[in-house]
Amino acid sequence: MTKRLTGIAASPGIAIAKAFRLNNAHYEPAPEKVADAPIEVERFRKAVEEAKLELEEIKDLTEQRMGAAKAEIFEAHLMLLEDPDYIDAIIEGIESEGLNAEFKLHEVATSFIEMLSSMDNELLRERASDVRDVTGRIMSRLRGVSYAVIAAINEPCILIAEDLTPSDTAQLNLDYVLGFVTEIGSRTSHSAIMARSLEVPAIVGVGAAAVEIKTGTMIIMDAVEGTVLIAPSDEEMETYKARKAAYDQRRIELRKLLDQPSISADGRRVELAANIGSVEDLQKVLANGAEGIGLFRTEFLYMGRSSLPSEEEQFQVYKHVLERMNNKPVVIRTLDIGGDKELPYMKLPVESNPFLGLRAIRLCLSKQDLFRTQLRALLRASSYGQLKIMFPMIAIVDELLAAKQLLQEEKEKLVQEGIAVSETIEVGIMIEVPAAALAADFLAKEADFFSIGTNDLIQYTMAADRMNETVSYLYQPCHPAILRLIQMVIQAAAKEGKWVGMCGEMAGDETAIPILLGMGLHEFSMSASSILPARALIKQTSHREWAGYTEQILSMSSQTQIKQFVEQKTRSDLK
Amino acid sequence: MTKRLTGIAASPGIAIAKAFRLNNAHYEPAPEKVADAPIEVERFRKAVEEAKLELEEIKDLTEQRMGAAKAEIFEAHLMLLEDPDYIDAIIEGIESEGLNAEFKLHEVATSFIEMLSSMDNELLRERASDVRDVTGRIMSRLRGVSYAVIAAINEPCILIAEDLTPSDTAQLNLDYVLGFVTEIGSRTSHSAIMARSLEVPAIVGVGAAAVEIKTGTMIIMDAVEGTVLIAPSDEEMETYKARKAAYDQRRIELRKLLDQPSISADGRRVELAANIGSVEDLQKVLANGAEGIGLFRTEFLYMGRSSLPSEEEQFQVYKHVLERMNNKPVVIRTLDIGGDKELPYMKLPVESNPFLGLRAIRLCLSKQDLFRTQLRALLRASSYGQLKIMFPMIAIVDELLAAKQLLQEEKEKLVQEGIAVSETIEVGIMIEVPAAALAADFLAKEADFFSIGTNDLIQYTMAADRMNETVSYLYQPCHPAILRLIQMVIQAAAKEGKWVGMCGEMAGDETAIPILLGMGLHEFSMSASSILPARALIKQTSHREWAGYTEQILSMSSQTQIKQFVEQKTRSDLK
Repeated sequence: MTKRLTGIAASPGIAIAKAFRLNNAHYEPAPEKVADAPIEVERFRKAVEEAKLELEEIKDLTEQRMGAAKAEIFEAHLMLLEDPDYIDAIIEGIESEGLNAEFKLHEVATSFIEMLSSMDNELLRERASDVRDVTGRIMSRLRGVSYAVIAAINEPCILIAEDLTPSDTAQLNLDYVLGFVTEIGSRTSHSAIMARSLEVPAIVGVGAAAVEIKTGTMIIMDAVEGTVLIAPSDEEMETYKARKAAYDQRRIELRKLLDQPSISADGRRVELAANIGSVEDLQKVLANGAEGIGLFRTEFLYMGRSSLPSEEEQFQVYKHVLERMNNKPVVIRTLDIGGDKELPYMKLPVESNPFLGLRAIRLCLSKQDLFRTQLRALLRASSYGQLKIMFPMIAIVDELLAAKQLLQEEKEKLVQEGIAVSETIEVGIMIEVPAAALAADFLAKEADFFSIGTNDLIQYTMAADRMNETVSYLYQPCHPAILRLIQMVIQAAAKEGKWVGMCGEMAGDETAIPILLGMGLHEFSMSASSILPARALIKQTSHREWAGYTEQILSMSSQTQIKQFVEQKTRSDLK
Repeated sequence: MTKRLTGIAASPGIAIAKAFRLNNAHYEPAPEKVADAPIEVERFRKAVEEAKLELEEIKDLTEQRMGAAKAEIFEAHLMLLEDPDYIDAIIEGIESEGLNAEFKLHEVATSFIEMLSSMDNELLRERASDVRDVTGRIMSRLRGVSYAVIAAINEPCILIAEDLTPSDTAQLNLDYVLGFVTEIGSRTSHSAIMARSLEVPAIVGVGAAAVEIKTGTMIIMDAVEGTVLIAPSDEEMETYKARKAAYDQRRIELRKLLDQPSISADGRRVELAANIGSVEDLQKVLANGAEGIGLFRTEFLYMGRSSLPSEEEQFQVYKHVLERMNNKPVVIRTLDIGGDKELPYMKLPVESNPFLGLRAIRLCLSKQDLFRTQLRALLRASSYGQLKIMFPMIAIVDELLAAKQLLQEEKEKLVQEGIAVSETIEVGIMIEVPAAALAADFLAKEADFFSIGTNDLIQYTMAADRMNETVSYLYQPCHPAILRLIQMVIQAAAKEGKWVGMCGEMAGDETAIPILLGMGLHEFSMSASSILPARALIKQTSHREWAGYTEQILSMSSQTQIKQFVEQKTRSDLK
């Protein structure tokens, strides 16, 4: 019988191809005394040298195929090969203890990785993957086994790996890699996020059983259901080929909605917009029929560098995005740093609970120079499109008033300087702090629009860190507490005639969309790849019908009940 | 003119006495080459020896005057004097570098303190104060200046200090120390909390200007307003003596309410209960006329030790408290560990945002053995008084059902074992997660009572760590968002005929009490010292009048407005 594995469908799609096993699995060498330490050191140095040549090759290959940005990570790996804390420590260990290179490499790397992994700093934690990656590469050389070079893949395959490192994903060539399956990981792990962003089918967390999959074995991966079939029967091949064809056909159908407006079955028009985190995301936004940008995160401008971006630099980016969006609405969120996002060059104090700390608007109001620079850049860009400015993490009215005051001051200065500033910029806020939702009526008098940031709103309302797996059972978008807050926000805005969007993951969720449409949400902002399926769903959903269900839904005591209700109703809608 | 300082009134009261300056201020020695390193080492050893004798003396003195528990801290200090990482590192530094003892002591201690202060572990962070304290003591000996021995004070005085260390407060003899003023600190710093617990007037955070106050100078401290008068005029002395007399008179008046029930001006009976964190707090609870215990924190049973407490050990403590309370209601909260409270012996994973992590009921449900032991101890104690069991951090109904299931299982086992278990134990929950407040209607069907934990509820609703000073402006108990949540909770409970208490600091807050009485709160649980003032306030407040204000209050957009409204109304109530 065909062996089946199940995992988490992290990025949807169906792929059928031969497996390509990344044999970069863990290897735990035992300590062994060597006869001649200097010879052992030489053997180690040679492995490092070979790893270096290999890395340079991969770097070139990745640069040619995927672009310079993707190849950058290998620069970091090459630098690691020169790091005395790492390489020299191993050599000294071999010399002084007379032990084998494999063992010392493993020992030094492990302590390095453990140290980095325990750091509060996210960038340093990411460095741990780099060390793991480079260590695996040197180890393969020492052991004379080949370390898979993803960039060199030149025929269609499904990647099978314990996990994909950032350097692995940087090399993925989607002409050949049709999907991937990993042993570990969750919906929010690096590989899962990358898969969704690259729109490649992915199943993560299938467990150690995936070790048995050999390179060359035929594989079916159904990343809609989360199933992997190993060496399927002819019958199964036929079934899944048909299923894949249907899936692909649906994608073609969805493409037809590309330039259509988003209108519910009973004629209510809503806006389906995209969330973006950098200028590179624009391509996908335009290719997926977004009616605007509902959330432009500006953090990337500040990260991965050694000083603050200048006003001019920011202005150019904002202007570029507004121009590319060709007068469609673009909601730009002011800096949301702090929390899980750090800027080493700003030397912010270490906080015990950064998600509950000095982040986003709180930080911007306390560092006004930084904030004013961003506001000026935004104001200057405003004449190049339909700009909407959004402040994150507003909890109380005073914060919004303070932020608006700074914006007004910078606007007046620019006007005095004779610089063109749009007169129709809307100024809105994220609703992501429970207090803001609960007192939305007061905020609605001062904001032009709301955008509900469900990722944070859920985390705070449930008091459960969304990055912490031990409390992930509490992360329930359709829990009645969350839906009630959302309803309060929409109703409060409606009273003041303001529009409400949503830019958390929930906005693209199939279960949530009918409920939100019924509640009267105006704008749904999501990852670009979710837009067309959402548009299709909205086309067949009646706003009035679902508005009629709202009260009933809000009287259900659990997410499970609510999900069942939605599933049952949407199924009958389709009949 | 009299010099005035203002600070934070951390513990109320008025004191008039001469200043006693703790001259344990920071001293930064410069490095100096010494002619003879061994002689310098000898000088250092002698200072350590003297510090040891001094500490032993203080330990004895504190033990005699304040009891053995208070003297324990000096045991830790004495152990530090034997710590090789500390003492030997200094000696080796003097020997190898030939530098002066003061400099090396300061250098080693500073790096030690910095390391400890940066730890995630609270116990280790507290060790930093110990190192600072012991270092100051050795330094004084080296420099030939006296290190103030608080335990030796034998005439009335007001202590003036940069800050009070735990060892300082352990020595306080309240027959002589009438109050204290510190340069640094906030309402939640160690010295402020200790002051409220000891019921001694305290003003913290008056700034560096306090350095100028010399021992022997006459001082007036008004810790109601937060003012310190240095060398006051005769006229000022008269004014404040009268004010102090009035304040003391009020305290006498309050004592008359000791055995009276808590009944509003229009005849609504409520319960004023106390929060306790250990068995030692019982004395104060009984001395302040509490009608019950609204929150018995059980963490102390698990902390400051190296393994979990046994069932028998817990049983004895719960039984003792129930017996001492003589059939008055006692709400015992099950373990709320995690968050800011750690248990080193449990080796819990380090979390990025512990307040949003695996704490309280979440942890107990994942470590069922630990939880079952506590539940058994509680059930066994239940026949000795009026026990109510309370689960902390419940967010969703499923958690409550799971906890109740375990309780039921342990109860059945005990009954089978022939052990007496009360049949009237109420089982309730803390409402401190916003989701629980928003969906209180569902929880009210499953819980016998609610107790609103405002400290956490405010922190999550505002998304602001209550220990983080940079976001303390968001910690607003009377913000409309918080008051609305509280109202939802009380209304949801009322529909199911369940009672609602409050056990956060807000329950004892003068501004909040009339609002909460008006909303229909049934039980107010607070620190024992707040009970009598709260009872006096409730006696002159009309439930019906304030119920009539609720809607108006909830339509105000800020805490400032709401506070003004309450102040104005309560003032006119008193007319």
